[in-house]
Amino acid sequence: MFDESKAQHKIDTKTKPLGALGRLEDLAFKLCKIQKTLNPKVDKGAVFIFGADHGLSREGVSCYPQEVTKQMFYNFASGGAAINVFTKQFGLELKVIDAGVNSEDDSQFDSLENVITKKIAHGTRSSLKEKAMTDEQLEKCFEAGQEVINKHLPTGCNLIAFGEMGIGNTASSSLIMARLLNLDLETCTGRGTGLDDNELKKKVSVLKEVASKHNSCTEPKEVLQAFGGFEMAQMTAAIIAAYESGLTILIDGFISSTCLLVASKLRPEVLDNVIFSHCSNEHAHALLLESFSAKPLLDLNLRLGEGTGSALAYPLLQAACAFMNDMASFESASVSSRNE
Amino acid sequence: MFDESKAQHKIDTKTKPLGALGRLEDLAFKLCKIQKTLNPKVDKGAVFIFGADHGLSREGVSCYPQEVTKQMFYNFASGGAAINVFTKQFGLELKVIDAGVNSEDDSQFDSLENVITKKIAHGTRSSLKEKAMTDEQLEKCFEAGQEVINKHLPTGCNLIAFGEMGIGNTASSSLIMARLLNLDLETCTGRGTGLDDNELKKKVSVLKEVASKHNSCTEPKEVLQAFGGFEMAQMTAAIIAAYESGLTILIDGFISSTCLLVASKLRPEVLDNVIFSHCSNEHAHALLLESFSAKPLLDLNLRLGEGTGSALAYPLLQAACAFMNDMASFESASVSSRNE
Repeated sequence: MFDESKAQHKIDTKTKPLGALGRLEDLAFKLCKIQKTLNPKVDKGAVFIFGADHGLSREGVSCYPQEVTKQMFYNFASGGAAINVFTKQFGLELKVIDAGVNSEDDSQFDSLENVITKKIAHGTRSSLKEKAMTDEQLEKCFEAGQEVINKHLPTGCNLIAFGEMGIGNTASSSLIMARLLNLDLETCTGRGTGLDDNELKKKVSVLKEVASKHNSCTEPKEVLQAFGGFEMAQMTAAIIAAYESGLTILIDGFISSTCLLVASKLRPEVLDNVIFSHCSNEHAHALLLESFSAKPLLDLNLRLGEGTGSALAYPLLQAACAFMNDMASFESASVSSRNE
Repeated sequence: MFDESKAQHKIDTKTKPLGALGRLEDLAFKLCKIQKTLNPKVDKGAVFIFGADHGLSREGVSCYPQEVTKQMFYNFASGGAAINVFTKQFGLELKVIDAGVNSEDDSQFDSLENVITKKIAHGTRSSLKEKAMTDEQLEKCFEAGQEVINKHLPTGCNLIAFGEMGIGNTASSSLIMARLLNLDLETCTGRGTGLDDNELKKKVSVLKEVASKHNSCTEPKEVLQAFGGFEMAQMTAAIIAAYESGLTILIDGFISSTCLLVASKLRPEVLDNVIFSHCSNEHAHALLLESFSAKPLLDLNLRLGEGTGSALAYPLLQAACAFMNDMASFESASVSSRNE
């Protein structure tokens, strides 16, 4: 059985003053706990980007047109997006899951390298008019999210980072966060891809209308169905599946933290396997992180999504493993310990 | 001639919302400015650790015995220290400069791999009794610091990160910082490798005595001579030399920031080439960073020195270069820009 005190002892006897590696030591300890070993390994990580379109995106909640979701999917597939550049640099695998992108010709998508097709529909319905998903669509999302993880396990992957793409999904996240944490929408709503003051005011007013339309939805899955996107529902399921398979889970920004919120309402123990990569510049993310008592590794004012914050934090996880596995102890290096 | 506005334009037309890569964009911009190019490169970085002993370390200002400096030098040379592990992982070269370690048999040192011998003496004198260095020793340090950089240039190195090892050198740093920034010693003194409350009180009281002994020293070089260590004087010179050679300079924690303080008092323009890697857990470092108006990349409560914070920040610099060089633009990827 894994003994936590042995992990702490191993950390404390490395050739450095007690605690001198600061939060990297906490990270190493957490990795030991997740992987139930004194020699944690993060050498085969993958970023899974779930993408889909949102009916609500047509109601003026984003400053980019819906087709950007599709265009960015092509960008992911052809290697030109930020996440491509970062995953390549840090040796992470990249999988892009089409959970419901609004593309005219799906066969174009299916043939793209790295793309996994789990398309539920060409975008959700507008939650301003009805629940974003049908019962059946929600269930399909949960199956799909689990499948993509399970299918990836034989690669020997030991870490999954979650990213997303979907014009309009910060709006979905604000709605879900506000409902599940019982907060008002102003607190949970931010500028997304870059709204100005007036546009933000309009977004909040639209979201209030959406929220009041689905006042009766309070259970996690109901809330996800009413306000969420296919990419978010699939990611929620994938987080749970990753936990069940004992993987280390790296959480990115506001949207993936919201999916984690839903997942943790359904299965609180998923949090045991989670490492928070960064605090994004999206207004509500800091508050959401606080609700998890999380102190993420990076604080770089990112607000791109795609899993970019996770990719940038990945080398720190590798550094934590490296010092646990390869650094000398006071004894092995014959270094004197502190004066008594 | 390098045109800053072109660098900003290049950043702004990458396939991401304006500013969405947050502080990584500022970092990319700074790297462009330092290297005077739209395609910055950080692919051949080196960590230079300057090490030396301090006469003052025998006056109860540290909780580790002086011989730890020497022992850690062997640890650096045999690959067991944290900085070995991190530099290996991130592909950084590691050079260890013996600026004045108190070792009985110097020939043992000279033969160690990666060690550059620039030994001035077997540790400084105690600044409680006299100036830590003689005039001649200070000048020798400045020559040595410049030499190690100049000798390394033909390797094609494009970034130097500075680290240090020297039991007692947080005490030196506190003295230098207090004098050069005109602050009181309580504000500038921290727990170093892990002093408790009583030990800290004693350290402050010793430092006050040292400070008052050298009340007349106020010029940067005088201050360095009175309070500094050989490793600090050599690093100060090396920072200036790195600037003069157009290298990108990555600054680590409290001690290397103090050396930068001295260097910038002598040559203010060195700051143009400096990137601050992290805010350490050593009490005064945050304040020292503030004096530079610096917001470092990482905040992980590190307090190990050795250049470890710099090594951990290095992948972020590489990520900043990678997005500048390899990410698609809206035009090249046919992605729509924001609604007008």
